[in-house]
This record gives sequence, C-alpha cells and structure tokens, in this order.
Amino acid sequence: MSSAASFRVEKDLLGTLEVPADAYYGIQTLRAANNFHLSGVPLSHYPKLVVGLAMVKQAAADANRELGHLSDAKHAAISAACARLIKGDYHEQFVVDMIQGGAGTSTNMNANEVIANIALEAMGHQKGEYQYLHPNNDVNMAQSTNDAYPTAIRLGLLLGHDALLASLDSLIQAFAAKGKEFDHVLKMGRTQLQDAVPMTLGQEFRAFATTMTEDLQRLRSLAPELLTEINLGGTAIGTGINADPGYQMLAVQRLAIISGQPLVPAADLIEATSDMGAFVLFSGMLKRTAVKLSKICNDLRLLSSGPRTGINEINLPARQPGSSIMPGKVNPVIPEAVNQVAFAIMGNDLALTVAAEGGQLQLNVMEPLIAYKIFDSIRLLQRAMDMLREHCIVGITANEQRCRELVEHSIGLVTALNPYIGYENATRIARVALETGRGVLELVREEKLLDEEMLNDILRPENMIAPRLVPLKA
Amino acid sequence: MSSAASFRVEKDLLGTLEVPADAYYGIQTLRAANNFHLSGVPLSHYPKLVVGLAMVKQAAADANRELGHLSDAKHAAISAACARLIKGDYHEQFVVDMIQGGAGTSTNMNANEVIANIALEAMGHQKGEYQYLHPNNDVNMAQSTNDAYPTAIRLGLLLGHDALLASLDSLIQAFAAKGKEFDHVLKMGRTQLQDAVPMTLGQEFRAFATTMTEDLQRLRSLAPELLTEINLGGTAIGTGINADPGYQMLAVQRLAIISGQPLVPAADLIEATSDMGAFVLFSGMLKRTAVKLSKICNDLRLLSSGPRTGINEINLPARQPGSSIMPGKVNPVIPEAVNQVAFAIMGNDLALTVAAEGGQLQLNVMEPLIAYKIFDSIRLLQRAMDMLREHCIVGITANEQRCRELVEHSIGLVTALNPYIGYENATRIARVALETGRGVLELVREEKLLDEEMLNDILRPENMIAPRLVPLKA
Amino acid sequence: MSSAASFRVEKDLLGTLEVPADAYYGIQTLRAANNFHLSGVPLSHYPKLVVGLAMVKQAAADANRELGHLSDAKHAAISAACARLIKGDYHEQFVVDMIQGGAGTSTNMNANEVIANIALEAMGHQKGEYQYLHPNNDVNMAQSTNDAYPTAIRLGLLLGHDALLASLDSLIQAFAAKGKEFDHVLKMGRTQLQDAVPMTLGQEFRAFATTMTEDLQRLRSLAPELLTEINLGGTAIGTGINADPGYQMLAVQRLAIISGQPLVPAADLIEATSDMGAFVLFSGMLKRTAVKLSKICNDLRLLSSGPRTGINEINLPARQPGSSIMPGKVNPVIPEAVNQVAFAIMGNDLALTVAAEGGQLQLNVMEPLIAYKIFDSIRLLQRAMDMLREHCIVGITANEQRCRELVEHSIGLVTALNPYIGYENATRIARVALETGRGVLELVREEKLLDEEMLNDILRPENMIAPRLVPLKA
Amino acid sequence: MSSAASFRVEKDLLGTLEVPADAYYGIQTLRAANNFHLSGVPLSHYPKLVVGLAMVKQAAADANRELGHLSDAKHAAISAACARLIKGDYHEQFVVDMIQGGAGTSTNMNANEVIANIALEAMGHQKGEYQYLHPNNDVNMAQSTNDAYPTAIRLGLLLGHDALLASLDSLIQAFAAKGKEFDHVLKMGRTQLQDAVPMTLGQEFRAFATTMTEDLQRLRSLAPELLTEINLGGTAIGTGINADPGYQMLAVQRLAIISGQPLVPAADLIEATSDMGAFVLFSGMLKRTAVKLSKICNDLRLLSSGPRTGINEINLPARQPGSSIMPGKVNPVIPEAVNQVAFAIMGNDLALTVAAEGGQLQLNVMEPLIAYKIFDSIRLLQRAMDMLREHCIVGITANEQRCRELVEHSIGLVTALNPYIGYENATRIARVALETGRGVLELVREEKLLDEEMLNDILRPENMIAPRLVPLKA
Repeated sequence: MSSAASFRVEKDLLGTLEVPADAYYGIQTLRAANNFHLSGVPLSHYPKLVVGLAMVKQAAADANRELGHLSDAKHAAISAACARLIKGDYHEQFVVDMIQGGAGTSTNMNANEVIANIALEAMGHQKGEYQYLHPNNDVNMAQSTNDAYPTAIRLGLLLGHDALLASLDSLIQAFAAKGKEFDHVLKMGRTQLQDAVPMTLGQEFRAFATTMTEDLQRLRSLAPELLTEINLGGTAIGTGINADPGYQMLAVQRLAIISGQPLVPAADLIEATSDMGAFVLFSGMLKRTAVKLSKICNDLRLLSSGPRTGINEINLPARQPGSSIMPGKVNPVIPEAVNQVAFAIMGNDLALTVAAEGGQLQLNVMEPLIAYKIFDSIRLLQRAMDMLREHCIVGITANEQRCRELVEHSIGLVTALNPYIGYENATRIARVALETGRGVLELVREEKLLDEEMLNDILRPENMIAPRLVPLKA
Repeated sequence: MSSAASFRVEKDLLGTLEVPADAYYGIQTLRAANNFHLSGVPLSHYPKLVVGLAMVKQAAADANRELGHLSDAKHAAISAACARLIKGDYHEQFVVDMIQGGAGTSTNMNANEVIANIALEAMGHQKGEYQYLHPNNDVNMAQSTNDAYPTAIRLGLLLGHDALLASLDSLIQAFAAKGKEFDHVLKMGRTQLQDAVPMTLGQEFRAFATTMTEDLQRLRSLAPELLTEINLGGTAIGTGINADPGYQMLAVQRLAIISGQPLVPAADLIEATSDMGAFVLFSGMLKRTAVKLSKICNDLRLLSSGPRTGINEINLPARQPGSSIMPGKVNPVIPEAVNQVAFAIMGNDLALTVAAEGGQLQLNVMEPLIAYKIFDSIRLLQRAMDMLREHCIVGITANEQRCRELVEHSIGLVTALNPYIGYENATRIARVALETGRGVLELVREEKLLDEEMLNDILRPENMIAPRLVPLKA
Repeated sequence: MSSAASFRVEKDLLGTLEVPADAYYGIQTLRAANNFHLSGVPLSHYPKLVVGLAMVKQAAADANRELGHLSDAKHAAISAACARLIKGDYHEQFVVDMIQGGAGTSTNMNANEVIANIALEAMGHQKGEYQYLHPNNDVNMAQSTNDAYPTAIRLGLLLGHDALLASLDSLIQAFAAKGKEFDHVLKMGRTQLQDAVPMTLGQEFRAFATTMTEDLQRLRSLAPELLTEINLGGTAIGTGINADPGYQMLAVQRLAIISGQPLVPAADLIEATSDMGAFVLFSGMLKRTAVKLSKICNDLRLLSSGPRTGINEINLPARQPGSSIMPGKVNPVIPEAVNQVAFAIMGNDLALTVAAEGGQLQLNVMEPLIAYKIFDSIRLLQRAMDMLREHCIVGITANEQRCRELVEHSIGLVTALNPYIGYENATRIARVALETGRGVLELVREEKLLDEEMLNDILRPENMIAPRLVPLKA
Repeated sequence: MSSAASFRVEKDLLGTLEVPADAYYGIQTLRAANNFHLSGVPLSHYPKLVVGLAMVKQAAADANRELGHLSDAKHAAISAACARLIKGDYHEQFVVDMIQGGAGTSTNMNANEVIANIALEAMGHQKGEYQYLHPNNDVNMAQSTNDAYPTAIRLGLLLGHDALLASLDSLIQAFAAKGKEFDHVLKMGRTQLQDAVPMTLGQEFRAFATTMTEDLQRLRSLAPELLTEINLGGTAIGTGINADPGYQMLAVQRLAIISGQPLVPAADLIEATSDMGAFVLFSGMLKRTAVKLSKICNDLRLLSSGPRTGINEINLPARQPGSSIMPGKVNPVIPEAVNQVAFAIMGNDLALTVAAEGGQLQLNVMEPLIAYKIFDSIRLLQRAMDMLREHCIVGITANEQRCRELVEHSIGLVTALNPYIGYENATRIARVALETGRGVLELVREEKLLDEEMLNDILRPENMIAPRLVPLKA
C-alpha cells in the first residue's frame, strides 16, 4: 500500500513507466535518465542552463497568452513555476545526463515536465495530471527543442558571463597591483631561457595584467556579438511551421526583457537552427584565455624555481606541504593546477569542435556535448582564475636582492653598456666574463672603461628598461 | 560544547586547521580540498583509483613490517583499514578534486590520512591522534607520492580493465548475432555515399564485430604491456633515497599478490618516475576504439535514416519520443549519444597528451589530469558500449524487402552482370537506366540479354557477395 | 679555378662557411638551412611572409635614415632591394625551413642577408662585402628578431587577408545564386537524419550563404582587431633597449604607410613581445570557418547520395571518373577534399595552440611553428573555397521531381496537416502510412479528410515553409 | 606544328584532355591535378608511398599472369615499369596533391597511368596508346582503389620503418653514451621545478635512453602487428566481386615476396576495406614518441638555461649566432625545433583521427589525408631525431663544478643527512639555511653534527643516488 504511493504511472508514445511519486520530472525525463548513464554529470550541474531554460519557457508562455493561445490561469501557473527555477529552486529535478542523444529533446522535456508539475501543484492538482496543464501542449507550446534548447544554451552562457568577467577583472587587478609593487625591482629578462637584457619585475607582472586585459575586452565584446542572436520561433527546422506568425517577435522580445539580455531574432532561421559557429568561436576564445593563463603559470613556476638550484626571483605563497619525504619542500601547486585546467579546456574545445563538424542537414544533433563542454570550460576557467588570484598572486613576494645580483652577475648586462664602451670592448668583456666566471661590471671597473658616475647612471633601472638617447660624451 | 565536538584541530608544516570531527581525512586533505575547487569531480568518483591506493598502502605496510620497520600492531591496523577501502567502504572520504596541483601529493595524503584515522579507531584511539599511528611516518613509510601515486593509477586502470573488456566483448557478441541474423539480407554496399556493389547486411554487421574484436585483442594485450611495470620503491625521484635496499622488491611482490596483477618493478626508476608514455599510448588506444564506435554509429544512423526520405534499410529500437512538434518521429538517440562520447574521449586524449608533454625534469606534475582524463575515458567508453548494446544493437531489425528493392533498382547491380553481358552492354544499360529511371534488371530482361535462369543464378546472394569464377558458357 | 668561383667565404661568431657564389643569402641563412631539415617547406612557400619582412626592413631603414643613423646611400640601396622582394623577386632565396629553432632569428637573418646582398650589388659591390652594407648593423638596425619577426608575420597575414575574403565572398555568391535558383524546389527537411518537415532547396542553399556570410563579416573585422597592433620598436624583450627614443613611432608610421595597413604601436611592448593570443584566436576563427565548410560539404554529399540507393535530391558536377571497377560511378570528390582540408586546419589549430602555450618568460620561441601553421591554414582554406565554388557549387543541379516525390511520400508531411485534421487524425494517418507503406496524402484523400482545394492550398510551398495562421474554417 | 608535338589527347568517361607530351601520367591524373590544388605537396614527396604502389601493381600483375588473365608480354612490360619506380625513377610523375577527394582513386590512377606509359614505351609504343596496354584493364586488373591504395599505404609505412627505427636507435646510443660520460657528475634532482634530492647527470641522460628504448621496442613490434594485414583482393567493398577466386591469395603472397614484408590477407575483407584503426593507433604511437622527445628537449633547455641567470648545468653545442642585438648570445635552437616538430605531429594525429572518424559505410573516403599526415609525422620525427642527435646531443658538455656547487649549496641535501642527524636537526638546519642563505653542509660542519669522514661518506655520489642501509653507528 505504501509502495503504491511511491510512484505514479505516466504514459507517452512508447507506453507507460512508473515515475517516483515525489519527482517533478515525468516519463520522458525518466526515459532519458535510463537511456543515458554516461558522464554522471546531470543538467543541474550548470544552474545557468536551467535558468536559461526557465526563462525561455516563461517568454514562450507570455507570447502564447498574448496571442490568445494560452489561458491566463495556465500562464500564471507556468510563470510561478518558472520563477521558482529562476530563483534556484527545484534544480535537483534536472537529472538528465549532460551527454545525451536526441539533440537536447530530453533537456527540453525535463524542463517542460518539471515546470508542468510545479505548476500543477500550484493550481491545486496532483503531479502528473497533465489534463490540466500539459508539458508539451502548454509548457512547450509553439516551441520545438530545436529552437528552445539552443536559445536556452545561449542565454545560459550570457547569464553567467558577468561573473566570468568579474573573476578575470579581479585577477587583472591582482596582477596590476603586483606590477606596481614590483616596479622598482630590477631583474634580468630572459629569451629562449637564456639571459637577455634587464627589465623590472613590475614590467613583467604588468605584462600579465595587460595580456589578460586584452582578453577581458575581447570576452566582453564577443559574448554579445556571438550569443544574442537566437532562433526562438523557428520551431522544428527554422521554417516556423505551425507557429503563429506573430509568435517569434513577441517571444524574443519577452525573453530579452525577462533576461535583461539584448537578444535579437536570427535573420535566417534555417541557418540559425543548425549553426554552431558561435560556440566554436566562443570556445576558441576561452581556449585562448586558458592558454595565456597557462603561459603565465609556467612563468610563475620558473621564476619561483629553486629555492637554491633554480631562478628563485619570486616566492609563491605556501599553500600546502610539498613532500612527505623531503622536509620543508613547498611546491607551486596553484599554478600547476591552473596549467591542468588549461589543458582540460583545450580538450573541451577539441571535443566541441568535432561535435560542431558533425552537424547534418537541418540540425546539429551533437549540441548537448557542445553545451556540456562550453559550460564546463567556463566554470573551470572562472574557478581557476579565482584560485590563482586568491591563493597565489596576491601573496607573491619578490626576492629583490636575488634579482639584482642576477642582473649584476649577468653577462647580458653588457648589452646595456654596448653604446658606451663600444661593440669591440663589449664582446671582449663578455668573453672574458664567460670564461672566468667573473662579472661584467667587475671587469669594466677593473679596466676603468667607465667611471662610477657614468656606470651608476647607466645602471639606474629607469635607464636600462626603456629606449634612451646615448649621451654625446659617452 | 557541542560545537567543540564538531571539529578537531590538526597541524602540519603550515599551521593548524579545524577538521570536521567525523572526517576520516585530515588537515592535508582539507587544505587540498580548500585549494582545488575546480572540476567538482572528487577522487571518489573513480573507485578503482581509491582501491589502487589502498592496495599500494597495504603492500608498503607488508614490506615495511617484513623489514622490521613497522610494528605488528600498526601493520594490523593499517591492513584492516586498507581492507575496508578495498571493499568499497569510506570512499566518500576521498574528497580532493581530480584536478589538483602538487603532482598527486594531495591524493596520496588523502589516502594516508583516511587509512590512518580508520586504523586509529580500530586501535581504540581517536581520529587525529597521530602519535599512535602517523599518516606520513607509518602509512606512507618508504613511499613518496612520486612512486605511490603513479603505481596506484596503473593499478587502478588494471583493476578496471576486465570490466571494460567484458563490455566490449558483449557488444561484439551482439554485433555478431546480428551478423548471423542478417546473413541472408542482400543489400547494396555504398562507397563515398554512392551506390557500389551488393553485399549482405550480415556482412556489414559482422564487419562491426570484426573491427571491435581487433580492439578487444589489442586492449587485452596492451594493458599488461603498458601498465604492469611500476615505479614503487623509487621514492622521490627514482634513486630510492632513504629507502631500505630490500624494500622495492618486497613491496612490488606484495602488491602483485594483493592485486592479482602481474606487476613488475621498473628497470630504470629515474625514467619510470616521470614517464607518462604508457598513459599516452593507452589513451591513444581508447581513442581508437572510440573512433571506431563513432564510425559504426554514424553508419547505424545512415542505414536507419528516413523512414521515407532516407536509406531505411534497418530499424533502430525506439527509446524515447523524438519530437514534441512532429508526431510519430523517433530518433536514433543511442548512436547519437555514442558519437558524443567518442568526441569527449578525443578531447580527453588531447588534454592528457598535452599534460604528458608538460613534464619537467624528474617528475610530471600534470599527472593528476592524466589520471582524471584516462579514468574518465574508460568509464565513458564502457558505459557507452553497454548502452549501445542494450538499448540499440540487440533490438535492430532489418527491412529486408526495402534492402532487396534497392539492390534490384540499383544501377550498381550492373557491375555484377559485367562479366556476363560484357562491358559495352553494361555501360549502355547503366546509362539508359540512369536517364530513364528504369531498373537495370528490367532493361536486361527486356533486351533478353540473359535468360531468367542465368539471371537468378547471378543474383543469388551467395554469388554476388564473393569472388566467383565466371561460368564458361556466359 | 672555376671551383673557386662557385662559393664565397663568410664569417660569423661561430666561424666561417662556404656560401654558394650565386646565393643572395649568407652564412647565417646557410647555417639555419643546414640545421633545420625538417618540414621541407621553405619560407618562400608563403610569399606574403617574405613581403611582410621586406616591408618591415624598409620601414626600419626609413626611420633610421630620418633619425640620422643610416646614410642616404645605404638607405637607397636597401630600399631598392626591399622593392624587389615586395615585387616578388628573389623569393627563392628564402630557403630556411618553416620549422626552425631560434624564435625566427633565422628567418629574420635570411631577410637581412638577402636584402644586404641585393643592395650590395646595386651599390656596385660584390655579394658578401658586408663592410659596405651589413646585414645586422644596417639592414637590421634598431631591430631585434623579437620585434621584426612577429611584426612581419602579422603584416603578412594582413596582406593576404583581402584575397581570403574575396574567395569567401565568391563562394557566398555562388551559394546565394543557387539559393535563388532552387527557391521553388520543395523538399523535405531532415533532423537527426529523420524526415522532419518541408522546406525549399533554396532555403537550404541560402542558409549556406548566410552562415558563410557571418564568417565573412567576422573575419573581416577580426583581422584588423587582432593583427594591426605591432611590437616593432620593442627590440629584444620590449624595453626598447639601445633603440633611439624616436624610433618606434617613426618605424610604425612608415610601415603603416608602406603597407597600406592601419598599423598601430603596441601599448605594452613587454607583453606584445611574447603574446601569441592574436594568432590563437585568429586560427580559432579559421577553424570555425573550416568546420562550417566541412558541415556544408557533408550535407552536399548526403543530398547527392545515390543515385538510386541514397537521397539523390541534387547532382554534383562530375569532375573525374569515380571507379575503375564500377562503370559509370561518379563520386563527390570536391566536397570530400574540402572535408580533408578542414581536418588539416583543425590539426593546424591544435599544433599552434600548443605552441602558444609553450611560450616562456619574455618570448615565445615556438613562433615559427605558429606562423607556419596559420599561413598554411589560410592557404588551404582559400584554395578549398575556390575549388568548392568553381568545381562544385556553380554546377549543382536539383532533382526537382525527386524532391517533390519525397515530400509527398513522406510521413512528415502530416505535421503540416496537423492544424487542419487534428492531432488524433494525424497520428492515426501517420501510423497507417508507416505500417502499410502508403502515402499520407493518399490516405487523407481516401478518407476525404480534406478537399482537394484545401489540400492544394496547404501543400503550396509558400504555405508550408513559413509560419501561417490556420484558416478559421479548417 | 611544334605545338602539336607538345601534348597528346587522352579520353575518359568525361571527355578528352590535352596531356603534356612528355608526361607519363595520363588524363585521370591530369584531372586530379587540376581538381586538387590544395596542400602543394605532391605524392612524390613521399617516395615510400610511390614504391608501395609500384610493388602492389607488380604483385597484381604476377597474380594475373599466373591465373592466365595477363599475357607474358604485358606482364614483362609492367614489371619493367614497376622496377623503375621501385628503383626511384619517374617519381616526379606522381603529381597529384596529397590532399584529394575520391578516396585515393587519383593516386591509384596516377600509378596505373605512369606504369602503363613507361611500359608502352618499353614495348615500342607511344605514350597514350592504351590499346596495347591499358592503365585500368591491364595495370589495375583485378584491383580497386579501395584495396590497392590502402595496401600501398601500409606497405609504404613498413618500407620506411627500418630507417625510422635506425634513427631512433642512433639517438638512444647518443643518450646512453652521455649517460656513461656523465655518470660521475653529481647534481640535484628537481621535482615541480623545486630542489629535490641528489642524482647524477648520468642517471638523467640514461633515463632519456631508457624512455626512448621503450619506444624503439614498441614501434618495432607495433608496425608489423598493425600494418601487415592487407585487404588486397577485396576489390570494391571487400566482397571481391568480379575477382578470380584464386587471385587474393596469389597477389598477397607475391606482394610479401616482392616487398620482403610478412604480409598476410585480412580475415574480414569487408571490415578491412574501411577500417582505419591501424593508422590511428600507429599515429598515436608516433605522437607518444614525439611527446617524449619534446619533454626531453624541454629538459635540455632548462638544464642549459643561463648561462648566468638559469640552471646552467649543461652546455648545448652552439649551432648559430643567437641574437643580432645581444652579443655572444647562443640559443638552444635544436631542442626548440624538436619541440615544434612534436607539436606538428600532435596536430597531424588530430587531423587523421578526425578523418578516421569520418568513414562512412563501406569505405573511408578521408584516407588520403590519413596517409598524408602519417607519412608526414614519420618524416618529421625521423628528421628531428637525426637533427637532435647530430647537432645537439653528441656535443653536450657538463658543467661539473656548477652541478656540484648546486648540490652542496642546496637545502635538499638535508634529505640525505636525515637518517644520520635526525629529522629534528634536519628541519632546523633547513630552516636556518633558507633564512640565512647559508649552505646546509656549512651549518652541519659548524655544529659538528657529523665528522668529515662520515660526511664525505654520505656525500659520495654512489651513496646518495641509490637506496642504502643506514650504518649502525650513525
């Protein structure tokens, strides 16, 4: 008897299934959950996608009411349900695997069913009494998965974009602050891992800020350029078959208002239904940001290498003991983790690119993988940037004395003296220094090639790290 | 007072932290969990990795006891704890993110701490009373992350390998059964999506079985070839520093016995400590299997395309309603999901390849990502194969009549008649057929180029689908 | 004696080498050619890169003369030499392999040496008499490889960009023309390779035009956004060490004028020296275009599949005999080749992405591979688009009758009747059609569910392929 | 009149074309050359592929003569032609682009036509007089591109394999020699770029030899395992349609004898016709080798970094001047080039993997790209290994004094003292050393924690770089 209460029976084209009594999802969601036991990552893992779906359903309901196809009562119930999802409630009901066949139909139906059942309860009915409010006929009215789902993905990406930009901006501020803090720290620049010419540690960190700022600007402009054109209203293949001629415009306008995003209707709905180009380029941009972060983290690991047998110009904050066998060892674990995130994002970009290539005729059936991988890349990127800033960048200190010693000890310093002592002297000094292990400055002083005043002038950081007119008397 | 009971204080080189009172993990695990909030996928997601870690700890404890470095009491407690983990208990205590810095130190310490605390309770102590049994000094004795962790990964992969092979074998059996079932179904073969020459549907499915059998054999032989050589005993960098000279051999022998796997010590421990080649090739093999499955699923989707405007030679079992807007539409959702799994595995292979390239000097610090991606690929592959067999292959039916009509209607049939009616006639018939839309056989009959008996003989499936000596009288 | 004339001896830091007497390149080029025998693809393979180098050298010479560092005579000789290279002469002298160590130093020196020797001859000297005009001191004056080389790459990409856009635009026009030509051809749309709802073949080709137009616009705007900011003047690491303070601005201005490109100086020269982000994103965009082309070519191959056992809605022009064994077989060889180009471009994108990640500290030493792969992708893409347009798209014809038969025979047609005959009737008709193999229209007529006038009205293409208000009386 | 002599007219199914009079290829090759102007890399770029094709044609001719289908005269002429190609003559006649549509038909026809025309001239006829010997009917007898082409690819790879192995083996010997040479050079090992524990430079180089030896063995066994099973005899789709029942066995046997390779017939010809698995795994193995080489080259660049501000433990031989602006700078150009080759090979692997996934039904039409990319990877890999050995490894020298100073100066040395002075002392010493910048040994001596004899004993290389029982008296 109590077991009778533990499920309800639902029905679809293929027959009946027992749905858990407390589930807000219905039979089609259950079929999909049974079919796709793959990644183990459910839709609920990406809340912005769920919110995006809810907003699409709300916008469609608004348009359908305005066109006279949906009653006020149904509209009110659907609206209340969508509001709960947008607020973050009921997300655990989105149980379908992110990897799924069917081009997103299961995701769309999961949303339709959850909304219908929340709405039914709000109307005083039982879950599953679809005669009062139907997942397909009412919640999905005038929609096809093929327009509702890609629209929700785009919207979900837009909804999360400000947070991504904020994380990136905070990281940039952290780099810039270090750039300022280290502005007086003279150090050797290195090209091809070989000693090159002097610069400041501040310049080095400011360059990190600059390069990430370029990505901030690019990401900020790319998202609206790529993601605001939506194919809602195209229905099955973009012809808008069986949709009210007034529906598309109304639905898109409503969605723009609800989401606060500058959404516009796609000009060519046939094209927009199957096109994945926006995701490929957006992911390509995320990959670029990941690659830049990885390069920076490689640099941080190089600069903090040692402490005795490496470069050791900077210290990363200790985050955890580094070795059980080697006492006192502390490792650059935070940059190392960022590197791995970058590689994972490169893998995601590949997977979704191949998926984009796999579209056929009027649809790209691989869209669920594309959505999965792009949401995953964004989450990984944002978390990695927060981690990097909070657990590493803000705590970096400089070994100023070490930096300066390396400069003074360096043969590359001779490049700065070149215009003053002449190429011939410079080459000879460099050779002697390399062969004897002595310092360039030491040799220059010994040979009295330059007086102390001149030498001090040349070696003043501001004079070595920028273009400079050679004084006439030199 | 009750709040006092909710945590305990633990201490490491960096200071103290409050560890939840009921946690079996300790301070280093907690630091790592706080540091790495990235993929959201904890170690416990891959049970074979946890079991592999426990077996390594057991083997080390056995060796240390035998060498007189670990007391019987401590050994007994550690053994009991490892047994629980091997049985599947306490896996939820493995909370560190699969993506982590530190080259696996956090994973290794998570195992050390969980085992220590389970053991401490078994000894009658409180969790955290490490003076009685220490995560580092006792559980991790004679080990470094740099040998224990890669050994556990290899072992984890080996432990899951039979299940992967079993799934693949079942899938092969399903293909083979269909190959037999469809052996009499004559159909057109297609090259470059253009009509080619006749074959049977049975040959087509048997080829699926053949190609996957090649992978079964390859996977079966590759795993022991690649994964049984372990670097346990190398400690920090492979020199075995501070380890008892007798330790390596004993520990490896014990691990082989405990795991039932034919493990052998690496010949060059320096090399073995940083080398990721085995994972790169093993992943390359998984990628190959994924690519083959994807190609097969593309074929299944092509062959079942239609029902009216496509090829429609076979029917895939309906798994879920295909469209809310188009009544009666059923889609090939299972093969579609397999395609996406294949793309994800390609992405995983890329990510871990780049990680393998990122090794530096005596260690590859990107190993956690490598482990993550390879375990993920295996799980995805296995689940996808099970899904494909159970929800698709076993239920496939043939449209025998449709297949035959396409053969008879095909112009490609003329190739089979070529040796009998001559190249000139064949070319002419082909051209007329293409221009008029009429059938090749119809035209041959009309022109009485061959009598019915001969035609029937030529068109008998067994005669068209294999090399055949042209009868003298033809 | 004659053998004495066959080479000249040149000298550098590492010693002397015999350079072929007729070679305009010098000892450093020769060393590089001897060192790097790898891809077999010399610099001359990409003429725009050579031209870009020459323009950089011209701009630097102009700036150096204006600043008083280069004599009028030397400037005139260098200018004449650069003009020859820009015109396309002497490109065969660029013999270094595209894959090279040294971060492009060999490419830069190849340019310096060729220009010096052309200039020397113009001045009445012998090749190799560098005392009159020196590759380093004069041609490379105020430059480092680290600023001259990346600037030349960016410029080379910009110089070839209009041709790429023109090829893309021509392809779009070809798609659009077919879109217009096929506007009246009603056909079935397909989703997931299953029959969906009607559309026109014109809509299908117009969507190809639309999707490529998006890429045309994106490529047109991305190139200047990404590639016009150059680091010329940064010298070794971006500090501009040893450069005249007035040099950077003058050199960039001159280069903008010479090239006709809107070049601007990088704001942060340290960052700009090592940053590869522009190439990563630009390649990501090329990859997107390649993926779109590949999807289109997959569609063309599907739509032309058959002729008897496939979809056969369109005919691709025959380009070459398809089979030696199967008479009359003609294959879609052009789209097949485009697919392969797309895959090659995906591989190029990966290679250069990994190279971009491999930058270290003040330089990315993998830049030669990045340049190689991006120039290769562009060339492949442009040639593939020209081939596709010329050898395939413009010659495509439609099998209009076949298209219409598939629509009429299709069960998916019932979706269009849905609003008129009701969901219950539609589902029943669909089921009967599928089971009996009969047509939907035939059954509807038989049951007199709709009169001929209404049926004809519904089935008029313009009514099926766009949203439509259901007539009240239906 | 003389212009009449400059070409001959040939004819195929699509019409006639003017073929250059001196060309040994014919109309179908010309069509392909006109169609595919893509990579710019002709078939002749990969001589082993051309030789493989010639051997296949020879074997087929042998079998056809033995079965009585080919006259002795024709056989003799074909054999003479094939012998010329195998010898290396006429390769410039293989003009078709490596990237081509048609699944290799153009490559196969290029071979058929060149052989026919060489044979015709040998028979005393004119090129193009195919009535005496026909490219299709005679040279291609009993073959389809779909069996001849993949067989030639496999054979081409096998034919080049010994040279690849030889290059790898020579590189291994060079690493091993350095391992021996540097066996006495004590140095610090590093993990995560942080100081770890001592080892010898010899161990480091021996590990390079070991890891590459694993790849030598794997490559040696994989090639025959993967590539010797050929589908010759399967004709169009593997059914062997229109082939003599005795043909397959004879042709394969002949090909094995001619090539000296242990070729065997594929058991399932349907499967073998479209399966690309062997290439995917073989490329995966090449990628692994490339990744290992890249990791080694990263290490070489790290170890030789400096000379003053880096690690500077080894010196790479100077190969070319490093900078025009920085006097005396010499860069690690050879390892840098190897890195880039590795990235290119990773890209190739991706491209061919995607191509392998793109197979459809009875054929993989993307096979030309697969062949291109795998031949390219092999050539790049072999050349990179030769370059690395010859221009870098054999000339490496050690900075023994520097290595020892870093060990003695290192804090990590304390790990070796741990068992003798106790963990507490070790930790204290380590902390004081880090804070004061003083050496561990200096502090130990100052505190007289160990006498000189004991210290010398501990610090003897053979005692620090392997497991060791702690002496009782310590």
